[in-house]
Amino acid sequence: MVKVTVWNENRHEQKNPLVRDIYPEGIHGAIVHFLKEDFEVITATLDDDEHGLTDDVLNETDVLLWWGHMAHEEVDDAVVAKVKQRVLSGMGLIVLHSGHFSKIFKSLMGTTCDLKWREAGEKERLWVIDPSHQIAEGIGNYIELEKEEMYGEHFDIPPPEEVLFLSWFEGGEVFRSGCTYRRGKGKVFYFRPGHETYPTYYHKDIQQVIKNAVQWAIPTKRVKPVYGNAKPLEGIKN
Amino acid sequence: MVKVTVWNENRHEQKNPLVRDIYPEGIHGAIVHFLKEDFEVITATLDDDEHGLTDDVLNETDVLLWWGHMAHEEVDDAVVAKVKQRVLSGMGLIVLHSGHFSKIFKSLMGTTCDLKWREAGEKERLWVIDPSHQIAEGIGNYIELEKEEMYGEHFDIPPPEEVLFLSWFEGGEVFRSGCTYRRGKGKVFYFRPGHETYPTYYHKDIQQVIKNAVQWAIPTKRVKPVYGNAKPLEGIKN
Amino acid sequence: MVKVTVWNENRHEQKNPLVRDIYPEGIHGAIVHFLKEDFEVITATLDDDEHGLTDDVLNETDVLLWWGHMAHEEVDDAVVAKVKQRVLSGMGLIVLHSGHFSKIFKSLMGTTCDLKWREAGEKERLWVIDPSHQIAEGIGNYIELEKEEMYGEHFDIPPPEEVLFLSWFEGGEVFRSGCTYRRGKGKVFYFRPGHETYPTYYHKDIQQVIKNAVQWAIPTKRVKPVYGNAKPLEGIKN
Amino acid sequence: MVKVTVWNENRHEQKNPLVRDIYPEGIHGAIVHFLKEDFEVITATLDDDEHGLTDDVLNETDVLLWWGHMAHEEVDDAVVAKVKQRVLSGMGLIVLHSGHFSKIFKSLMGTTCDLKWREAGEKERLWVIDPSHQIAEGIGNYIELEKEEMYGEHFDIPPPEEVLFLSWFEGGEVFRSGCTYRRGKGKVFYFRPGHETYPTYYHKDIQQVIKNAVQWAIPTKRVKPVYGNAKPLEGIKN
Repeated sequence: MVKVTVWNENRHEQKNPLVRDIYPEGIHGAIVHFLKEDFEVITATLDDDEHGLTDDVLNETDVLLWWGHMAHEEVDDAVVAKVKQRVLSGMGLIVLHSGHFSKIFKSLMGTTCDLKWREAGEKERLWVIDPSHQIAEGIGNYIELEKEEMYGEHFDIPPPEEVLFLSWFEGGEVFRSGCTYRRGKGKVFYFRPGHETYPTYYHKDIQQVIKNAVQWAIPTKRVKPVYGNAKPLEGIKN
Repeated sequence: MVKVTVWNENRHEQKNPLVRDIYPEGIHGAIVHFLKEDFEVITATLDDDEHGLTDDVLNETDVLLWWGHMAHEEVDDAVVAKVKQRVLSGMGLIVLHSGHFSKIFKSLMGTTCDLKWREAGEKERLWVIDPSHQIAEGIGNYIELEKEEMYGEHFDIPPPEEVLFLSWFEGGEVFRSGCTYRRGKGKVFYFRPGHETYPTYYHKDIQQVIKNAVQWAIPTKRVKPVYGNAKPLEGIKN
Repeated sequence: MVKVTVWNENRHEQKNPLVRDIYPEGIHGAIVHFLKEDFEVITATLDDDEHGLTDDVLNETDVLLWWGHMAHEEVDDAVVAKVKQRVLSGMGLIVLHSGHFSKIFKSLMGTTCDLKWREAGEKERLWVIDPSHQIAEGIGNYIELEKEEMYGEHFDIPPPEEVLFLSWFEGGEVFRSGCTYRRGKGKVFYFRPGHETYPTYYHKDIQQVIKNAVQWAIPTKRVKPVYGNAKPLEGIKN
Repeated sequence: MVKVTVWNENRHEQKNPLVRDIYPEGIHGAIVHFLKEDFEVITATLDDDEHGLTDDVLNETDVLLWWGHMAHEEVDDAVVAKVKQRVLSGMGLIVLHSGHFSKIFKSLMGTTCDLKWREAGEKERLWVIDPSHQIAEGIGNYIELEKEEMYGEHFDIPPPEEVLFLSWFEGGEVFRSGCTYRRGKGKVFYFRPGHETYPTYYHKDIQQVIKNAVQWAIPTKRVKPVYGNAKPLEGIKN
């Protein structure tokens, strides 16, 4: 069975009663709730030993989800390096919302990952622009969220290999909200929605996209590429 | 169960004893042989009524494979139009070898699809350059074919969305041998090897790639996009 | 000097006084006005002989602009075939607004090029999402148009090689408004704005984008690729 | 005039008489020689103060070229961070040959950038696969180098936005030898050839490609994107 680890910073939930009211078991708890129907899921948080991402956990994880926001700087560089090495070796990675500024995402992208934002409880519509993609399977023409934080372009990421969703916001901005990348042997999906003060992770379509993304990000079983000094074809002079 | 239709021109097999010796049941017969383990497979050929691609057949087909070479011009434009409409509606399409010059492939690409070629029984190595792609699943660092027809760049196709294999040929050429495209709601894969005078379709790795490609090209079950005149959000003036 | 041909259907201008008021010299006339500062520009329209696209004109054209809407079907297939051949040979092509449904654009794309639309005089904001691209040179964070026709996703095009602009519309939709493609040796740019009942082509930023796009689409002077039967490296057996 | 800085590690030239014989003024000297016809060029090397990349130098540089091999680890992290910040702000970067393993390239790519290699003086052919790209302007169907070090796939880079050259090697390998990326507001080009023991940088076509690449990588003059907390459209509630 596919093994999924949901990593959450889990700080807003401790400090802000409003967030705790919406997510009494944490954002990770809400995500586990709908993923566990299909996958074997564990959680890990910032305040766990090694942030809960020990070698054993990482080596057993097929797909890692990442939610962080106010404490990106507290994530240990050594843990980030190990997560990156695992992604490059094939582990899937799904980066959620404010995780755009996480060390692991910035390190895999090579850019600042900066963007515009506004907390104004605006309506958001995520339009599907890639109707043949398995991550959009089961979704209609768009997903509508009554209230969300706005993220606006320019989003300073490398041009995505695939853009699946474009967001429209009431206040006048647009955003590339569902982006895929391949890095080494691993697949990476960035998915925009999920501000901590809104019940976004209870929305059926958001849950469907995340489930689809986990399925998409499962490592393939390819023989490993060989690197380094190589022999030529037989019969070549050298 | 996934429904696959293997379309073959089936002319070389009638005219050239060498080809018939290698593929006594036709190239389509050889392909059906390894696909039927995993899929529900039927065949269709140029000389069948409507080339075997009636509305009933097309509407029931999840993924269509296409092998053609000497008789591209004999394929009826009306059939090509129907196949194209089906691809744009979601049917997967896998174009093999000399199918690069088929009407259906050229119509979906929008370019000449021209290339260099040489029949000299050269060694070919297909290097895997996308190690996380499901179409390369189970393949090693490269696939080696003792003898194949050479296809060389420049290959006049639109830049592929993904290039999975690059071929090396003994005589000095290279080729983008495994290319993916999305067109409408359908997925398209072009796979280079398979000249009629070599036993390429009996090679285990070639078979594996084609099986993987069929799996990859299965239509998703998304709600259909809505086109045409649209209503605005409530509250907008119009 | 770079030679540009502006092709316009020029029918709305004849039939609709409102359009004629805005564009008394036709949409082509308005476009010529700002292009002629930098390029050698001629015009061609549907009702000209061979639609104004004779062999002489096409062979002398470096970059062709295309505006059409109500009479796409009246464009002669033979002319479309010649334009396509020229694009594949290197001529740049810039397709404007409702040109998305022109025969030439659909033929180069291979898809339906369908979309959502609404005529409601909505505000449009074109956000720049590729800040290093020469076509966006000189443009700020976005271009704002007070009133335009809405075009909304899903836009049924192949995934663009580059998306430079994303449009936000007042009524709730988004659109990929600036898209680049390479086809053969030619470059293609689709640019969304320009409904005939709005003075869009008088907007400085829209003019700047079109000028930049012409510059970008100028053919390179590469030696032509060689296709067909090829000789191997010396010393290879065959 | 466009300002170019050629950065070279300049160690092989000091330690290996063979290399010094080929490049008596260093690899950087050879590159300056052909670039100075078109650009204002300075050089910088590892053993200069701050590796020659002071704030003044970096701020004045439009396009930076990078050749390094045996001493990647000696490049100061603080200098790498500054170079990266400049690329993300718009400076062009051209990474040559063994620069694939430089800190700056790996940091911008987010992957290991590993590959296969073999020093056997093999013939290399770089086939042009993007005939409309300005970096290939003036080049024929391929560039042939009598002897070069082999670099083979899998090359562990993100899928390039554009692949312009594919290399064929005598010993049986292929390689994506000319790759473009956009990172932030900067453009990045990786170009494979240039092993220190061969006279590759004296080859006219190699020089042409590098000149074209510098031209391509010049920063555009766009207004800077605005990031951070943003105001909504007037009339929106917040």
